[in-house]
Amino acid sequence: MDNYIDRLGKLKIFKNFSKAELMKIFGNVRYSIKKFSKGSLIHTSGEKVENLMILIEGEVITEMVDFNGKILEVERIKSPEILASALLFSKDNLLPVDVLAVKDVAILYIEKGDLIRLFQGNKALLLSFLEDIGEKFQFVTAKLRVNSFHTIREKITMYLLNLYNQQNKPSELTITLTLEELANLFGVTRPSLSRVFSEMQKEGLFVKNGDKIILKKLKN
Amino acid sequence: MDNYIDRLGKLKIFKNFSKAELMKIFGNVRYSIKKFSKGSLIHTSGEKVENLMILIEGEVITEMVDFNGKILEVERIKSPEILASALLFSKDNLLPVDVLAVKDVAILYIEKGDLIRLFQGNKALLLSFLEDIGEKFQFVTAKLRVNSFHTIREKITMYLLNLYNQQNKPSELTITLTLEELANLFGVTRPSLSRVFSEMQKEGLFVKNGDKIILKKLKN
Repeated sequence: MDNYIDRLGKLKIFKNFSKAELMKIFGNVRYSIKKFSKGSLIHTSGEKVENLMILIEGEVITEMVDFNGKILEVERIKSPEILASALLFSKDNLLPVDVLAVKDVAILYIEKGDLIRLFQGNKALLLSFLEDIGEKFQFVTAKLRVNSFHTIREKITMYLLNLYNQQNKPSELTITLTLEELANLFGVTRPSLSRVFSEMQKEGLFVKNGDKIILKKLKN
Repeated sequence: MDNYIDRLGKLKIFKNFSKAELMKIFGNVRYSIKKFSKGSLIHTSGEKVENLMILIEGEVITEMVDFNGKILEVERIKSPEILASALLFSKDNLLPVDVLAVKDVAILYIEKGDLIRLFQGNKALLLSFLEDIGEKFQFVTAKLRVNSFHTIREKITMYLLNLYNQQNKPSELTITLTLEELANLFGVTRPSLSRVFSEMQKEGLFVKNGDKIILKKLKN
């Protein structure tokens, strides 16, 4: 386990825990670690998700089969990351995708019941888990809102409008995401996003200074 | 409190609890109930969300102000419903909207710390809460996936493809949502959705029989 603790510590839900605390947590809960070699099928669509699954090593892709039998790649996930966390506690907990190892992979499993017992004995961990789910949920919600707009320019405006309301309608907004995260939120590449930010600045709509946006004549 | 217990019992997170169990839960936790008359401003954008907020009576709308000072209605929420549950445990917990009463409203508040203590003493309630967040998260994720397709026909096909993979690729699928929920998922009206289902049936792509879809020659 010892050699995995450092990787686990990189997960958002464990970021406030020291190495000693993590050793203690994993000393008090049943878990298993399984290894899968590159190319192998790890989980199959239709399986029930009954375990917290933490990808601690390697990289996976998730795939669906379409009605023509063709394979569609859905997502690529790098370690360390929690897999399928929204499904774990849902009633409808059937995996909609196949999960395949694209590198040698190690996954740590904790059975749902054991996880709940762990949460009941460790308030900080429960809070951390709720924070993690809450933030992922919020990100997807923001993405859904932003995606109802088609151009990058509209997406930026909508995102800034959201900040404007959250931050008490100041003339200087603070962007809380990195450019990488913003590009992911908008579903566009970083260079395209940077280009549109520059265009909008040139038009005098706002001044962008690091994570600060000074509003000038931005309208929606 | 007694008169609110029946309404609270209608919430998804309390659906597995008897009236006696709910009375016990609310006998063991600090909460407050505030009333707001029709038309009043309940919460302002920029406020921190530090309480579980349960709308137990009435109806609210959420609004944003755009850069032109114009008011945009974001959402309309009917009781009973949990408000802003994704924000409660997030680090970024600033409310992005104003919340206004469009009918006389009663809201029950439980402070975050008290809620966590409640969860630690009541495993069933913790599970129920996690299930509720998990399902809302899953719904938004599904909505995001489906919304990347423009026509209702494409949305239906994508939704069925998801079920096809979840349900072990059978020739007969079971739809797990009501027509109302499906229409909400797709962001379309119920009549439009029914019409497209009929068209696709007439073209012999599938046979729809209640919640069963018998696949014929559906391709994507």
